[in-house]
Amino acid sequence: MAVHLGSVPIKLGVLSESDHMSVASINLFVALLCACIVIGHLLEENRWMNESITALLIGLGTGVIILLTTKGKSSHLRVFSEELFFIYLLPPIIFNAGFQVKKKRFFRNFMTIMLFGAVGTLISFIIISLGAIGIIKKMDIGVLEIGDYLAVGAIFSATDSVCTLQVLSQDETPLLYSLVFGEGVVNDATSIVLFNAIQNFDLGNIDAVTVLKFVANFFSLFFTSTFLGAFAGLFSAYIIKKLYFGRHSTDREVAIMILMAYLSYMLAELLDLSGILTVFFCGIVMSHYTWHNVTESSRVTTTHAFATSSFIAEIFLFLYVGMDALDIEKWKVASNSPGKSVAVSSILLGMVLIGRAAFVFPLSFLSNLSKKSPNEKITFKQQVVIWWAGLMRGAVSIALAYNKFARPGHTQLRGNAIMITSTITVVLFNTVGSQHVIRASKF
Amino acid sequence: MAVHLGSVPIKLGVLSESDHMSVASINLFVALLCACIVIGHLLEENRWMNESITALLIGLGTGVIILLTTKGKSSHLRVFSEELFFIYLLPPIIFNAGFQVKKKRFFRNFMTIMLFGAVGTLISFIIISLGAIGIIKKMDIGVLEIGDYLAVGAIFSATDSVCTLQVLSQDETPLLYSLVFGEGVVNDATSIVLFNAIQNFDLGNIDAVTVLKFVANFFSLFFTSTFLGAFAGLFSAYIIKKLYFGRHSTDREVAIMILMAYLSYMLAELLDLSGILTVFFCGIVMSHYTWHNVTESSRVTTTHAFATSSFIAEIFLFLYVGMDALDIEKWKVASNSPGKSVAVSSILLGMVLIGRAAFVFPLSFLSNLSKKSPNEKITFKQQVVIWWAGLMRGAVSIALAYNKFARPGHTQLRGNAIMITSTITVVLFNTVGSQHVIRASKF
Repeated sequence: MAVHLGSVPIKLGVLSESDHMSVASINLFVALLCACIVIGHLLEENRWMNESITALLIGLGTGVIILLTTKGKSSHLRVFSEELFFIYLLPPIIFNAGFQVKKKRFFRNFMTIMLFGAVGTLISFIIISLGAIGIIKKMDIGVLEIGDYLAVGAIFSATDSVCTLQVLSQDETPLLYSLVFGEGVVNDATSIVLFNAIQNFDLGNIDAVTVLKFVANFFSLFFTSTFLGAFAGLFSAYIIKKLYFGRHSTDREVAIMILMAYLSYMLAELLDLSGILTVFFCGIVMSHYTWHNVTESSRVTTTHAFATSSFIAEIFLFLYVGMDALDIEKWKVASNSPGKSVAVSSILLGMVLIGRAAFVFPLSFLSNLSKKSPNEKITFKQQVVIWWAGLMRGAVSIALAYNKFARPGHTQLRGNAIMITSTITVVLFNTVGSQHVIRASKF
Repeated sequence: MAVHLGSVPIKLGVLSESDHMSVASINLFVALLCACIVIGHLLEENRWMNESITALLIGLGTGVIILLTTKGKSSHLRVFSEELFFIYLLPPIIFNAGFQVKKKRFFRNFMTIMLFGAVGTLISFIIISLGAIGIIKKMDIGVLEIGDYLAVGAIFSATDSVCTLQVLSQDETPLLYSLVFGEGVVNDATSIVLFNAIQNFDLGNIDAVTVLKFVANFFSLFFTSTFLGAFAGLFSAYIIKKLYFGRHSTDREVAIMILMAYLSYMLAELLDLSGILTVFFCGIVMSHYTWHNVTESSRVTTTHAFATSSFIAEIFLFLYVGMDALDIEKWKVASNSPGKSVAVSSILLGMVLIGRAAFVFPLSFLSNLSKKSPNEKITFKQQVVIWWAGLMRGAVSIALAYNKFARPGHTQLRGNAIMITSTITVVLFNTVGSQHVIRASKF
């Protein structure tokens, strides 16, 4: 029966150019996942650590070991795969976030969230791009066109919802959570429009029409994505209620919920919408309607099954990013000019800080004006936290950076290599750094 | 954030030579899965249909549509991928079977199961191989060595545990279920040893030593696989009890159980053991020990989450086999000699029938001798059902047939093409056929 599996590792070895991992590396990954969970559990009380940081560190450690054992030869274990990330890891995380989010709180702050997610992202994009063009361009780190710098702007203004979920607790700080996470979700739609704008529109002359087009684009994208997600959720609720699956088996109910949610995400991707927005709202609707139409055991199962899969996906993700951070080739190329790449990293870091500060504080001020009751206003301390929490740049930024700068062989070009290594540096710094700052500051 | 996903379909399209499906085909698959579940639910009362047959038919239908739309060009949607099957679909199914199996009943019939799984498989292997050599060889269907015929014997003596789960209900017919399914699990170990024997041992002179080697092989494989599975289960129980995960989150408990189970399977595959045996016993141990050490909600979650994932995997599998049945190239080649391939199919079918009858009835007689109480004896009617139920040849046989005869381009060879098409024919016939016979016969 499984007889020919002896040959699978070889077969997989053949496929390993793609993101397909060999049996051996799957074993390693699963074992590491278990380790992360156990360690994360043991360090539960330690407020400086959590699963994601543990995973990140273990990933780095494993990367080092692999490097040493393979004598610096690049191993497919460390190649970051966008497919794996966007098709398998991201959907459960975002869906679960939507499924567990406090809906009332979320919708009360909807306008502020939109403000941060749309206008804010735009502001930080502009600042970072201008900064990149203004400073990095002068450092001749290699051939990079204006488009590349704009891409940098978009990459570093794409906040990482996943990391946000890791640092802010919905129960301890509901307002901050809904603001920062909500921003992250809307931010996704914005950055899609941004990228398309960069690619399609004529950047030479940006006039009123382009801007209007841009705004129209954003809103159509936002609403179609949201609608698709809400529709998928309602549809699942309808058929489960109408057909009364529970009569025969709760497994069918759970299966339908999972499949419909995933379908909504993949459909959104197929239609070039924001899958994140879609699956997020699908989660909200499902927890609000579908969840109440299923049997009791299905409720328990879905609640925990979704949380667990999101939990595993997150750990996997950080483990993956940690390992990937050591893709030796790029570092080799970049390290020919160590000074420069350090400089670039720190400049980008600074730009991210400034770019984010430049919209968090003004926009918070604006939204405070609209709020009557003082306890709904965003205090300065909270604004600082929002500023920091949103600094997170995680797997998403890395995926984008790869997509832009790591086309086959391109990492040989110094410019691209430096860009990617800097991205990784910024990601590692931010993720570990700001998590600690936020945990330290008992807001 | 998800911006670059517009490019993923293209990127995936590049990967699609491997088993990596494009976003579009994922959409199609997920949508079809939903359809299967809904239809299967609606046909619940209809005893001629169930999810698996529905999926098989829908798969065939979709295959036809794809063929027509692509004008007979082969689409990667229909290429059967062993990796997908053995790494992602099979483990949850077998694990869940072990997790839900009635342990008392299973172990009471252990000797009979071993008898069927080990000796029985060997008998049917010999008969089918001899039949193939005796009859098919004379039909000059193309170049096939002695090894190929032995492979045919092994392929068609590998029963399909998955299909068994589909036709026999553990609650209605516990004895039959444990016998036929248990046989399927042991059968896996046997066929691994068989294949290795075919490849490694010198078939020219089979003497006592070879036979002894063979027997020793089988037992070592059987016990190491079982031990690995049991160990994984006990270990998970130990750490969950020791570390008391429930204190912090039930998600960790569920995650650890899932990961440990999967790890045991992948480890077994890595060590060329029988992953199916391993994960099956891991399931048994986990349901017996681990399950009792987790929080109440974890119990509900695991029970249903495992059942659901197995449920989805099964439907996916049948959908997949259905679609794959129409891989046009092979049929084209085979249809150059339609008479021959029909002949081969029916001969193989006959051989399978005879080969199985040749051990079910004698061995049942033997095991009846050892049983005292009459209600533990296997009645003749039950023997007939065992005979039929074990005829199932599903995705496993197809995977093996591909592994043996579908090496790149080989399907151009008439012999190989006929072998594969016959396998598919036999599979379709058996799956649909014997399911109906068994459902019809109210034993």
